[in-house]
Amino acid sequence: MTRFDLNILGCGSATSTLRHLPSCQVLNVRDHLLMIDCGEGAQLEMRRRGLKFSRLNHIFLSHLHGDHCFGLPGLLSTMALLGKTGTVTIHTFADGKEQFGRLLDYFCRETPFSIEWDVITTRKAVIYEDNAVTVTTFPLRHRIPAVGFRVDEKPKLRHIDPDAVARWQVPRHALNSLRQGRDFVTADGRTVPNDELTTAPDAARSYAYASDTMFSRRVIRAVEGVDWLYHEATYADDCSRKARARYHSTALEAATVAREAGVKQLIIGHFSNRYADDSVLLREAQSVFPATRLAAEGLQIDLNKVD
Amino acid sequence: MTRFDLNILGCGSATSTLRHLPSCQVLNVRDHLLMIDCGEGAQLEMRRRGLKFSRLNHIFLSHLHGDHCFGLPGLLSTMALLGKTGTVTIHTFADGKEQFGRLLDYFCRETPFSIEWDVITTRKAVIYEDNAVTVTTFPLRHRIPAVGFRVDEKPKLRHIDPDAVARWQVPRHALNSLRQGRDFVTADGRTVPNDELTTAPDAARSYAYASDTMFSRRVIRAVEGVDWLYHEATYADDCSRKARARYHSTALEAATVAREAGVKQLIIGHFSNRYADDSVLLREAQSVFPATRLAAEGLQIDLNKVD
Repeated sequence: MTRFDLNILGCGSATSTLRHLPSCQVLNVRDHLLMIDCGEGAQLEMRRRGLKFSRLNHIFLSHLHGDHCFGLPGLLSTMALLGKTGTVTIHTFADGKEQFGRLLDYFCRETPFSIEWDVITTRKAVIYEDNAVTVTTFPLRHRIPAVGFRVDEKPKLRHIDPDAVARWQVPRHALNSLRQGRDFVTADGRTVPNDELTTAPDAARSYAYASDTMFSRRVIRAVEGVDWLYHEATYADDCSRKARARYHSTALEAATVAREAGVKQLIIGHFSNRYADDSVLLREAQSVFPATRLAAEGLQIDLNKVD
Repeated sequence: MTRFDLNILGCGSATSTLRHLPSCQVLNVRDHLLMIDCGEGAQLEMRRRGLKFSRLNHIFLSHLHGDHCFGLPGLLSTMALLGKTGTVTIHTFADGKEQFGRLLDYFCRETPFSIEWDVITTRKAVIYEDNAVTVTTFPLRHRIPAVGFRVDEKPKLRHIDPDAVARWQVPRHALNSLRQGRDFVTADGRTVPNDELTTAPDAARSYAYASDTMFSRRVIRAVEGVDWLYHEATYADDCSRKARARYHSTALEAATVAREAGVKQLIIGHFSNRYADDSVLLREAQSVFPATRLAAEGLQIDLNKVD
């Protein structure tokens, strides 16, 4: 099974507490790390969770509120001190490039890696692609420009059937072609259909991150059918007016998005500091969408495993 | 005894570890909090140590390396969210005002308190004064402009001798005058010398912070005779060349500064991430200056108590 893990490093909201850290998560896609948001303390949590700076080359910032990006200067400084090489690409709005670019020019003049800025907008767009996944932005509905990220695994390789391959004396060099779904042609010119030599690939999984946002039909359309959705649920229903006024969602609204988008699993996060116990948010969300779980610092989820 | 406490929130060096946080400390001077340096995570440690944001009105930045100031945007943002009022003064170099000023203009547009910038230089100067203390900068010797801070308590009030005051029938309204050292004149015109009515005041204490710096005779002169000195001791003696090359000090050098300056107590900090156990630094420092202790996150020291 190819690796596709979600690591929650922070799932609190803007006002810091001792229960939650500001927003940050790291996707491990076949040992390439993609960071989504970078709240203060991100570098420390990377260490605490055993995530290697050397494998982190892409940082995606959903929007320019401090609790989603104030960890960036410290993270990049530490990576520079540790001698990280290559390129780190920061996917952010033009203002993010301007603000942090200037700060990093001053504080991190001598990075052994190069910093690239990928300027994003609120328009839906594929902003990252590698062999394993694509990352697509979609607009959120917040006080300031904000995007969600949808991460779709590419179709995976078919599994070789070792017995069939032995029976047909398929040479080693032909195996990759089989994994990619092509038929096999024997030395004497016979064509063996691919599905006699392979079994179906693992499912390609998908994950979407929507924080910060108020309830939005556009978000529902954008995350339609994903396996895993992380949706902010800053407030419980008793604060629904406050949620709207601040362009945030309630747990019920997050669950409604999950249900209407037909996702398989919902993770709620970005909890207000008013909740000493987040289980009220879980109960409310589960009343609409049972397959909900609470985010938590240190939580690691294997996104391949969908119940 | 009037309150004069030192709270160590972070005493690691630039490369973050799970053992130490970047530089930050908070002096509690009669319940006014003065923060010295503001490494990433300062706001969280304030909470963890029960230090109230509402009492923090002055932040002193020794120099503009990220591990001494990257906590500032998050700290001020959180204070804004919590509705802090009044004025917060940030004492920093012109570059600090420019860099953080621009960032805060963007990220913290709506602070309910006002931010004032006190632009400091490396010249020795009194940069802060209240009823209880003065704060004086002094130049350090580092790769970039850096200052230490010397905090001197003002002379304290004399203690009233309750028996003597009763005997001489001193009225209540005259007590403050006695505490300030003035003689008492009775209703019939007799002068009672102050020292018959009061006892000596508590000693006025002093504290100096010197980080980051390499060994410097100017530092010795600047901290001469302080009760408590916090001096960086990034390296042990086996890394003395590295220390010099990086404009840092060894534990032996920190202890030499303490001894030659005739301070009463030394606290060493700013430990390199290479030491899994800082006690090697303590042993080396104590070989030169026995009254040395290790800084540690969460350590609180009553600066009134000098052995």
